[in-house]
Amino acid sequence: MNHYTVPLRDIRFALFDVLDVESLYARLGLDAAQRDVLDAVLDEGAKFTETVLAPLYQSGDAEGCHFDPDTGAVTAPKGFKRAYEQYVDAGWAGITAPEAYGGQGLPDSLGIALKEMIDAANLSWGNYPLLSHGATEALRHHGEDWQREVFLRPIVEGRWTGTMCLTEPHCGSDLGLLRTRAEPQPDGSYAITGTKIFITGGEHDFTDNIVHLVLARLPDAPAGTKGISLFIVPKMKVAKDGSVGERNAVRCGSIEHKMGIHASATCVMNFDGAQGWLIGQPNKGLNAMFTMMNTARLAVGVQGLGLIDRAFQNALRYARERLQMRALSGAKFPDLPADPIIVHPDVRRMLLTCKALGEGGRLLAYHAGTLVDVIEHGTDADERRRADELLSFLTPIVKACLTEWSVECTYHALQVFGGHGYVREWGMEQLARDARITTIYEGTTGIQALDLLGRKILQQQGAGMRQFLSMIESFCREQQHNPALAEFILPLAEKAREWGELTLHIGKRASADADEIGAAAVDYLFYSGYVALAYWWARAVAGAEAGNAGDAFKLAKRETTRFYFQRILPRTLAHAAAIRAGKDSLLGIPAEAFDA
Amino acid sequence: MNHYTVPLRDIRFALFDVLDVESLYARLGLDAAQRDVLDAVLDEGAKFTETVLAPLYQSGDAEGCHFDPDTGAVTAPKGFKRAYEQYVDAGWAGITAPEAYGGQGLPDSLGIALKEMIDAANLSWGNYPLLSHGATEALRHHGEDWQREVFLRPIVEGRWTGTMCLTEPHCGSDLGLLRTRAEPQPDGSYAITGTKIFITGGEHDFTDNIVHLVLARLPDAPAGTKGISLFIVPKMKVAKDGSVGERNAVRCGSIEHKMGIHASATCVMNFDGAQGWLIGQPNKGLNAMFTMMNTARLAVGVQGLGLIDRAFQNALRYARERLQMRALSGAKFPDLPADPIIVHPDVRRMLLTCKALGEGGRLLAYHAGTLVDVIEHGTDADERRRADELLSFLTPIVKACLTEWSVECTYHALQVFGGHGYVREWGMEQLARDARITTIYEGTTGIQALDLLGRKILQQQGAGMRQFLSMIESFCREQQHNPALAEFILPLAEKAREWGELTLHIGKRASADADEIGAAAVDYLFYSGYVALAYWWARAVAGAEAGNAGDAFKLAKRETTRFYFQRILPRTLAHAAAIRAGKDSLLGIPAEAFDA
Repeated sequence: MNHYTVPLRDIRFALFDVLDVESLYARLGLDAAQRDVLDAVLDEGAKFTETVLAPLYQSGDAEGCHFDPDTGAVTAPKGFKRAYEQYVDAGWAGITAPEAYGGQGLPDSLGIALKEMIDAANLSWGNYPLLSHGATEALRHHGEDWQREVFLRPIVEGRWTGTMCLTEPHCGSDLGLLRTRAEPQPDGSYAITGTKIFITGGEHDFTDNIVHLVLARLPDAPAGTKGISLFIVPKMKVAKDGSVGERNAVRCGSIEHKMGIHASATCVMNFDGAQGWLIGQPNKGLNAMFTMMNTARLAVGVQGLGLIDRAFQNALRYARERLQMRALSGAKFPDLPADPIIVHPDVRRMLLTCKALGEGGRLLAYHAGTLVDVIEHGTDADERRRADELLSFLTPIVKACLTEWSVECTYHALQVFGGHGYVREWGMEQLARDARITTIYEGTTGIQALDLLGRKILQQQGAGMRQFLSMIESFCREQQHNPALAEFILPLAEKAREWGELTLHIGKRASADADEIGAAAVDYLFYSGYVALAYWWARAVAGAEAGNAGDAFKLAKRETTRFYFQRILPRTLAHAAAIRAGKDSLLGIPAEAFDA
Repeated sequence: MNHYTVPLRDIRFALFDVLDVESLYARLGLDAAQRDVLDAVLDEGAKFTETVLAPLYQSGDAEGCHFDPDTGAVTAPKGFKRAYEQYVDAGWAGITAPEAYGGQGLPDSLGIALKEMIDAANLSWGNYPLLSHGATEALRHHGEDWQREVFLRPIVEGRWTGTMCLTEPHCGSDLGLLRTRAEPQPDGSYAITGTKIFITGGEHDFTDNIVHLVLARLPDAPAGTKGISLFIVPKMKVAKDGSVGERNAVRCGSIEHKMGIHASATCVMNFDGAQGWLIGQPNKGLNAMFTMMNTARLAVGVQGLGLIDRAFQNALRYARERLQMRALSGAKFPDLPADPIIVHPDVRRMLLTCKALGEGGRLLAYHAGTLVDVIEHGTDADERRRADELLSFLTPIVKACLTEWSVECTYHALQVFGGHGYVREWGMEQLARDARITTIYEGTTGIQALDLLGRKILQQQGAGMRQFLSMIESFCREQQHNPALAEFILPLAEKAREWGELTLHIGKRASADADEIGAAAVDYLFYSGYVALAYWWARAVAGAEAGNAGDAFKLAKRETTRFYFQRILPRTLAHAAAIRAGKDSLLGIPAEAFDA
């Protein structure tokens, strides 16, 4: 009852008409990424996700994963393994991985569009290959030669998958508390012992081997985050020549029963002196981990995007078909027993919120993908550095805003269905349940906000933000005489100015009291996200006007931009007021007096 | 793992220190409602809900209801029937019902406090007795004498329960479309035929009989809402002398599988020529229905309140216990391995949002209860009429705002738990799933907003609103020299002024185009709710200062009010901007161009 059709028209609009990736790819020398290839990949991706993954979305939720306590084996719902085989056979696993390791070397921005399709089609299924990408990145950038040789190719080919093993029962956001131990062994390996929780895809039946990337402490490690190292711990031991040996001492102890993503196995993983190999430098595990983490954070932002789009599509279809009441201004379809509910302004408010946050969010996310392209394929070191700065700045915004918006939009889309939205059969409640994890895993919204404000702005002097602000300024300057944009340029420039001002304001306060950072962080993050989206919506209007889109498409973009500027962007007023309120508005009550 | 302790301290504060119900009850001649009785009832209510209902909350969700397709029987989860028996035996069923029908005649505002406890302890369980109250009201006000004699007493005593059968598959918000037929029979009864869906407690194993109040059409009824009549259709036929006969031709066809409230049976009810009795006048069923509906709407608002409180309590406990990271301004508990997360400003932002919306919402809801008291027990017709006007105005605000806030607060409370919040065991995700129905049933937020703005403000010239605004004005005048309130009076008066101005603004536009009502309604409703809550928080400070609360309690109220005024009330800025944007921001895209 819940459908998904890949919005190829809007995906192409984002990539080609707004972000002009054709020019970018040409400049980066990505010769394989010609337009006909890109079009074919997008078409094939749509076909695969619509016909193979989407039909398993609701059945996977109803069935869930199976855990065998005797063997520690986990079996994904019916059809999931077969879908994974088709995914691997069709070559999707390594589509953006380097050709040197068996990948196809296609651009990451294209990869993000494909991820959006996968996540919208089947979020739980998408979680299994998702973390392989992070493992690939960590191995490429921090692994030794033999580690790359032995572990990378099977992951890139999809024969094995990867995981990230960070969290422990007593340590989530605060990795400094972690206890998993790594004892050096005579053969140069380490014996890893400890319990990790919330391990997505920690065990499954898709592949013969699973490559765990595990944070642990060496015996002499300093306390806190400065004493954490990263290890490769395969499920089946692998020799340095690549030959697969016996079962390693790592085992799934149980799977979680969760609100949503039932078909995604969330595992407790017990390491009992398992053989592991150090990646990168001792005690520098967090560096290597952030390589994975940033990739995963972008990917989770894209999950939010996929959920928004699927929720929107279904709500839109329902709103066109469901007949209920007459428009207050008079019947619009007098021949029908009632008007379709899309005539009601408040139903439109909910649909337009999804459309504005989803299609605008697509530009935000794909733009981040183009920065990955530059970092991966750019030939100019300075350009790569700048892209990296901008991407680090944007990553927490993409992750947190798109996931928070997915919670909001799945709420609205369910609400459009009324009581039917609350019933499982229609699939809308599943979208809402699935969305709810995205603001938590790979760093909660609060953690993203601290990363943005504390690290990317205040510690790193806001280099990425300055770049983004100058993109806005250039755009406003270029477009100041474009009549199609007249109504948007001034409010956008004004918001950008206020953004800078708020940033200085917080910076000043934070230098006196670091709690001001935490007090402002989440509101600042939302503020930033709404201004960024205003920029992308203005660019969407410019892109639609300049391209060869049809009139209806242009109209829809322009009117959605109006809706966004008039009804969503004003949320920044509330966030700015909350930011200005400062820490005193939060810290006045002693912990024990909260329920005095 | 999920706890509930009745917040008796704050419930008493609301009733006695802010709303001064003792004076009210004395004035209304409610002699039975002496302070010692009230205290004893509150204490006993707390004991019952904490020890009998709360322990069944998570088990009821995990087990769900059972439906037997062969017999149409529905069995509630283990322990539910026994809890109902205890509820009836202790006399809770008729606590606020008139003594003439076997009730105890205690005030409705006290009843609302008890409902809050029930809903917080076990929302699904609370749904079974909830609709009995609506049925009681409809029978009292619209039933014939024999109907009251025969049906009321068993419902008041809890031996039978009531339902409301409104919705049909093709008609939810739009009752004008309903098709269920009522054919007059020679004995004065009617044969009711049709299918009703989403019938809460339509079938269960608690009682021997269930009294359905069913909307249906007489053969000669005009089309639309002017042709709807209300009927009593008992599960077991009942003769006019009260003797119970054979099984009536009404049967549960299936139960829904829902996102939440798994332990509350949501039934498809098939009426196949079932014997029914007309209540009130033919074709005037909507009047009688609104009597039930308004009671039910308040009750659903109180469900939101209960959920907020339970979510807050659990998040607060977790935030005090969970150790994670150090305060940015330096370790607060250097002897512990990390600080409890309640030191982090952003965790406090989430907790304070729950506290502000929950404790403020308690005053909003209980105040509505005192208006019911006046309507029920007042001796002055003019005072009753005024209370009725004010209550009609406040009902959509209580229903919609408290339920929307329950969605928001269960979100925040889950977020405080991080990944653990997403796991069933902790019960936080259940609160979020359960909350999600409350913004839908008994009229969605959109419907409440149209009721508020379209009916209560524009059609009825805002009599209730004018009363509420003059309450705010009087309060501001009285308190203008109270130093404890100095910082709140001016912003409150200013918001009240802007509220009136926005109302006039919309009224003017709506007279030119009725779609302006729908375009403004939900934002207007939220605006209204936030201003109303600002008033109640200011009153809370005044009440705390004047009463004999301890210093910590006073401090917590004052600081929460500051938080509310500085960080929540500014949301009105965004809502005001959205209201001013008008219909053009929503109606520019033709329905077919939404995904052009």
